[in-house]
Amino acid sequence: MAKGKLRAAIVGVTGMVGQQYVRMLENHPWFEISTLVGNRSAGKLYGEAVEWIDSYEPSERIMNMPVRVANPESDDVDVVFASLPTEAAYQLDTRYAARFPTVSDASSYRMEPDVPLLIPEVNPDHLSLLEAQRRGRGWRGLLVTSPNCTATGLAMVLKPLHDAYRLRKVVVSTLQALSGAGYPGVPSLRIIDNVIPYIKGEEDKVAAETKKMLGKLTDSGTVSPDPVGISVMVHRVATIDGHLESAYIETERPVDVEEAKEILRDFRGRPQEMKLPTAPERPIIVREEEDRPQPRLDRMAGSVPGMSVVVGRVRRGLDERSLRLTLLSHNTIRGAAGNAILIAEMMRELGYLG
Amino acid sequence: MAKGKLRAAIVGVTGMVGQQYVRMLENHPWFEISTLVGNRSAGKLYGEAVEWIDSYEPSERIMNMPVRVANPESDDVDVVFASLPTEAAYQLDTRYAARFPTVSDASSYRMEPDVPLLIPEVNPDHLSLLEAQRRGRGWRGLLVTSPNCTATGLAMVLKPLHDAYRLRKVVVSTLQALSGAGYPGVPSLRIIDNVIPYIKGEEDKVAAETKKMLGKLTDSGTVSPDPVGISVMVHRVATIDGHLESAYIETERPVDVEEAKEILRDFRGRPQEMKLPTAPERPIIVREEEDRPQPRLDRMAGSVPGMSVVVGRVRRGLDERSLRLTLLSHNTIRGAAGNAILIAEMMRELGYLG
Amino acid sequence: MAKGKLRAAIVGVTGMVGQQYVRMLENHPWFEISTLVGNRSAGKLYGEAVEWIDSYEPSERIMNMPVRVANPESDDVDVVFASLPTEAAYQLDTRYAARFPTVSDASSYRMEPDVPLLIPEVNPDHLSLLEAQRRGRGWRGLLVTSPNCTATGLAMVLKPLHDAYRLRKVVVSTLQALSGAGYPGVPSLRIIDNVIPYIKGEEDKVAAETKKMLGKLTDSGTVSPDPVGISVMVHRVATIDGHLESAYIETERPVDVEEAKEILRDFRGRPQEMKLPTAPERPIIVREEEDRPQPRLDRMAGSVPGMSVVVGRVRRGLDERSLRLTLLSHNTIRGAAGNAILIAEMMRELGYLG
Amino acid sequence: MAKGKLRAAIVGVTGMVGQQYVRMLENHPWFEISTLVGNRSAGKLYGEAVEWIDSYEPSERIMNMPVRVANPESDDVDVVFASLPTEAAYQLDTRYAARFPTVSDASSYRMEPDVPLLIPEVNPDHLSLLEAQRRGRGWRGLLVTSPNCTATGLAMVLKPLHDAYRLRKVVVSTLQALSGAGYPGVPSLRIIDNVIPYIKGEEDKVAAETKKMLGKLTDSGTVSPDPVGISVMVHRVATIDGHLESAYIETERPVDVEEAKEILRDFRGRPQEMKLPTAPERPIIVREEEDRPQPRLDRMAGSVPGMSVVVGRVRRGLDERSLRLTLLSHNTIRGAAGNAILIAEMMRELGYLG
Repeated sequence: MAKGKLRAAIVGVTGMVGQQYVRMLENHPWFEISTLVGNRSAGKLYGEAVEWIDSYEPSERIMNMPVRVANPESDDVDVVFASLPTEAAYQLDTRYAARFPTVSDASSYRMEPDVPLLIPEVNPDHLSLLEAQRRGRGWRGLLVTSPNCTATGLAMVLKPLHDAYRLRKVVVSTLQALSGAGYPGVPSLRIIDNVIPYIKGEEDKVAAETKKMLGKLTDSGTVSPDPVGISVMVHRVATIDGHLESAYIETERPVDVEEAKEILRDFRGRPQEMKLPTAPERPIIVREEEDRPQPRLDRMAGSVPGMSVVVGRVRRGLDERSLRLTLLSHNTIRGAAGNAILIAEMMRELGYLG
Repeated sequence: MAKGKLRAAIVGVTGMVGQQYVRMLENHPWFEISTLVGNRSAGKLYGEAVEWIDSYEPSERIMNMPVRVANPESDDVDVVFASLPTEAAYQLDTRYAARFPTVSDASSYRMEPDVPLLIPEVNPDHLSLLEAQRRGRGWRGLLVTSPNCTATGLAMVLKPLHDAYRLRKVVVSTLQALSGAGYPGVPSLRIIDNVIPYIKGEEDKVAAETKKMLGKLTDSGTVSPDPVGISVMVHRVATIDGHLESAYIETERPVDVEEAKEILRDFRGRPQEMKLPTAPERPIIVREEEDRPQPRLDRMAGSVPGMSVVVGRVRRGLDERSLRLTLLSHNTIRGAAGNAILIAEMMRELGYLG
Repeated sequence: MAKGKLRAAIVGVTGMVGQQYVRMLENHPWFEISTLVGNRSAGKLYGEAVEWIDSYEPSERIMNMPVRVANPESDDVDVVFASLPTEAAYQLDTRYAARFPTVSDASSYRMEPDVPLLIPEVNPDHLSLLEAQRRGRGWRGLLVTSPNCTATGLAMVLKPLHDAYRLRKVVVSTLQALSGAGYPGVPSLRIIDNVIPYIKGEEDKVAAETKKMLGKLTDSGTVSPDPVGISVMVHRVATIDGHLESAYIETERPVDVEEAKEILRDFRGRPQEMKLPTAPERPIIVREEEDRPQPRLDRMAGSVPGMSVVVGRVRRGLDERSLRLTLLSHNTIRGAAGNAILIAEMMRELGYLG
Repeated sequence: MAKGKLRAAIVGVTGMVGQQYVRMLENHPWFEISTLVGNRSAGKLYGEAVEWIDSYEPSERIMNMPVRVANPESDDVDVVFASLPTEAAYQLDTRYAARFPTVSDASSYRMEPDVPLLIPEVNPDHLSLLEAQRRGRGWRGLLVTSPNCTATGLAMVLKPLHDAYRLRKVVVSTLQALSGAGYPGVPSLRIIDNVIPYIKGEEDKVAAETKKMLGKLTDSGTVSPDPVGISVMVHRVATIDGHLESAYIETERPVDVEEAKEILRDFRGRPQEMKLPTAPERPIIVREEEDRPQPRLDRMAGSVPGMSVVVGRVRRGLDERSLRLTLLSHNTIRGAAGNAILIAEMMRELGYLG
């Protein structure tokens, strides 16, 4: 192991997000993959256990690492990246967090009052919830959650617009990629020549999580969700990666479209200031072409592929206090593994990783 | 030719909509295909000229009919079904209408004050515009237009809701099928593993046409567009047929969801009263499953395949004066050829076909 | 129940083939669906249990029928259509056959010496194996199997060519549809923008089964497999239904291409003579276009949709004793449920259904 | 322009292959893009003219370069990469070759006796045809052609097997990607949920070109095509990039499968010896998994993405003098632009670029 690198466990390592963790951490300057945790695949080598979906191919070292059953109490790592199904996450995320700094992309604890739900560019101040978490839970470690893959792109784009124009209502319609359903996920017989206008639980999650992330810290040390109204209608389409979302946004202040584009383009956050390894130079890329963003062309855009949100078709709504736009974000990178790694990087710089 | 059948010309017969006309008119009880008109294909037999896209296969008779160049002044038919690109339609639709009852699905004349833009179930009274048309144009024939394929399903669903709840604002996002772009249309390299969030001119057309169709006849004999605000964001997806639309609807009166579903289910129009051959028993089919409508499963639903609009996911919006739903309509049947044939059937019964 | 109709059980009724059985038997003139058998879905109504994949929608009657657990010893039906996974079929097919005339499309017993593997047009004489079966097994019922979905189309096309030219070697490459893998089957993440050049066990099955079907009855009452060499290379592609196969065929006698097409076109079998309800007028449809057959256009061709094999691109190979062609057959109709129903129809006419 | 780099013209720069040339030459160590030639796009900037298909995005410099009309007589470059439709190539390839070293991927001159048809690893000795070309044509420049995209992968794999086992007959079936048809190419309505078993002229080209590349130089300085029999059956499938081919190979000498895999793995050519920039370390990658190669996973495999051919499913045929395998090669990289660049690199090292 490279000297000084932090030892990282990937929990749920054979899944779609687990595969992104492997890809993004294999050559990471600060973290080193030291433990692979799986459930059904425990006891196998990673190369035998995983049905690898991407064209990227892990190194021999990783392919020959054993996958182990989850055993939070006996592991010895510096940080845990957990990507588990909801039920399993209810059991395991807190057991890992009791001992280690843990970043989870499961929905299980996202809405807990003492658990930060974080996009490092959007609400880094919510890390202060960890004080209450430590007091209340008595953990040696800590738990931070990464949001729903659809909420991530949406919150990133709404944040600077909210600061500038004060949002009243957002009506968003999504066209979500297949990798968002995990593996095996959506049967091909369901999606070829088809669209499915439904994803279980997704619409409520996107609305509630976005409101939490846009929320303010109160004096009592909790987060008060933002009162903006958010309506979400989801659709699954036949794309591999990249969630596309079209939003109709109503604001309190009048909107100038060109100014709004500048605000989006100029948006920067703590990760950019801190020059974190996984921070894209531009969190939001605004395109002027009338037919962009497109999933296959834009999902890997930017200086750190998959970490920027690409926005296009920015234009007025029905009146001057409204705006329309289409955004795209890579659901398993910015919407999961990449955002979680960025959280861990920021936490390391802020001294949370011990 | 069967005795008593009206002789129909199909103009633009090799295109996607032209192919639907052939399929739907081949065994029609009232109309008989007598003339096939094409441009690049003129001089060939239909079977040589057409790149047939559907699994339906036309009869030998049709395949061996010659395709002729457009020559409105020398044709001799009882009704014309015209499906031409916009520019060609500017030239030809009026030349045909000068001599024959003509139903066109081109956008060229849809917004003309004296041209009915018609869905027989929605605004049959707009046929009265034909009086002004005859006076003003001095034609022996007449011109009625069939709306944009996306506007058709939308207007059909909004009509009964508007009558019941008075609509204030509609925010709609579409997932449109490939056949809507005609043939050859969208290159496969653009749409496999992809979505295109843009269709030239479509968004404005859908809004304006829907408002015209929901509009009222004024004392001066013209149509005053409805003041409802309509925002449309379009997307092209990799489905063959069937436009899916998700709508967020704001109303003046409070909405009861179960009542709204009943209103949609119970909606009937003149075509149902008149028992027209191409009229579906139920113009709107409401489904209760949480994941319907789906294009591949529902686009051919109903007693006349492709003529019903299928609605699902009917639920409240952000407050009691709002409603959300997803609708599906077959873009080349109800959204083009089928609606035009239904128009012609209604006009025949009302004595407009001479 | 309609008087005089035979009561049919569909075993494995929620699967892809089970759904085709429902569709094809709902209005069958001779059979009536009386029992639905499922495993995981037992105890539910069919409408709750099935994830229906096709645009066809079963009647209320069927949707409200209970799905029952397999219980061959207590059922009371006239014929069993069984469509089970291999392991389950090993257990259940013989238990059903012990009491009822049973047609199974599982591979489990296809290669048993006393079990006919049947395409009614190809080897109806193999039904005579049932004598040995009855003697040896002591069953009140009987077991006939329907071949692998890829073998069905291939054997149908090879049969008349073998009779005419004596085949020496067949090198076939397949492009198989998703429904052939059952449901949920192939994950969408595996097949969008992709091809999988592998299907477990398929290549050996296609070769061995085709040779058995082309085989001759010996004096001892068994079938001697045909000595033709058959090489199969399979590929899964992103089509919903319809297996396409391209074959390079070497023959003992010189081949005249036009004559070969005539032989294919003129091919008729017992089902056509007997005018069975599910028998297509032409078992093989030969197309002359250079780019046919195509799955989406041709899989439902013919007088009984999905029951004809469509052949195209018939042309010479590298010398005069060779032939090349591409064939398409609907894998869940002629390749499974449809062929099994045709077997049952023929058996009824021949007095096997008691 | 970087000092010492050779100035390259890309002719046909907006097409699918043109786009690959841009991507692969933008940061090439030896060549610099100096001239962009297009036909319909002449007069525009490249960024306006091109409908860019890939997720890679060209630099500002390239996007702002003007596209010029073809004018071979007035250009001033060191090497020409030409990617034109057949008819245009008949006119222009020789006009370019009259003045400049020209590598063309058009089929127009591939079969000319004095024009090398080259895969640098397979038949570098065929460059000696250029002597006769210079004598006979009196050109200052020269013309070398890069083979058909399907022939490239096939010839690369057959070459070492031919040397080892002497091939008698090859029966190959292809599953070809959409980018092989250029842009706009295959309409999406033709290929979603479908396969097209036909590509105009392709089958003859693949056979004839492969035989030329495997052919030997004769004493008279021409190439005598190899006598191996090659049957090709082509299919277009819904993949973006990567032609898959399954081959049944008959040999004169007995084949040991493990040895054959070693022979393929160990295959190296002049480009590897010369360490050319675009030469992959391993021209052929052999995989042991039973379900590989797959287009989406393997088309960019190897040290220079898209330049290696990936082979899998190597196994016996019907007897010991036969072999079966499936191969994949990236059709616009190794099958076009990449192979042409590799040709140019080899020619530079051999002194052909002046």
